[in-house]
Amino acid sequence: MGETRVNPSIPDFSHGLLPAIAQDADSGAVLMLAWMNEQAWQETLASGRAVYYSRSRQQLWRKGEQSGHTQRVVDIRVDCDADTILLKVQQTGAACHEGYASCFFRSVDSAGQTHTVEERLRNPDEIYGK
Amino acid sequence: MGETRVNPSIPDFSHGLLPAIAQDADSGAVLMLAWMNEQAWQETLASGRAVYYSRSRQQLWRKGEQSGHTQRVVDIRVDCDADTILLKVQQTGAACHEGYASCFFRSVDSAGQTHTVEERLRNPDEIYGK
Repeated sequence: MGETRVNPSIPDFSHGLLPAIAQDADSGAVLMLAWMNEQAWQETLASGRAVYYSRSRQQLWRKGEQSGHTQRVVDIRVDCDADTILLKVQQTGAACHEGYASCFFRSVDSAGQTHTVEERLRNPDEIYGK
Repeated sequence: MGETRVNPSIPDFSHGLLPAIAQDADSGAVLMLAWMNEQAWQETLASGRAVYYSRSRQQLWRKGEQSGHTQRVVDIRVDCDADTILLKVQQTGAACHEGYASCFFRSVDSAGQTHTVEERLRNPDEIYGK
């Protein structure tokens, strides 16, 4: 308190990658969670398309560059702590690489058992041309 | 491929804490993102109330234990990679410690400037009795 912070970085990437939630702007469905570094963030702002950072491939991930399932960004939110990003998007095709509209297609019951509760829109082999 | 995995842990806490998104079960609004360890997960399943792990306090965080702003869990989802949790909740009061319904009360424009776009429901000083 009493400390003056000039232009605090929002969002704050000083501790590393930040989680970014993609939400369907029309239905409100939570589609996926991915990660951003500052470059992904800046490219998302500039392009109006969701760009993430792939932790497994350790490189920028322009969502849809392989699958065509791009996300047009309608609104960007940051949370109170400036360490989580929420993108409201218009999703082309299926957000999930498994071919579901949302990555959250499994529900967990109170015994910890999972149940698939969404319909698969696409065969993953079709999406990636395997 | 061809490998048999018996009872893979879902969600998979083997690499540490997992992000957990809380979404309002009625409005679809994304309320907050917090973190879970396996104990928080198990207690959430057993109690039907959202329990997280506070990274700053390094202890279990039974959402609402201080503020009264509890989250009754209506549905639990896990994502395709089993490394992100989505809780659909009935939220009592304000999810955000800043007194907003959602922690994502700030929108970011294409120039990177933030704008508060939600109404504050509660004065934070009231919530925490400061």
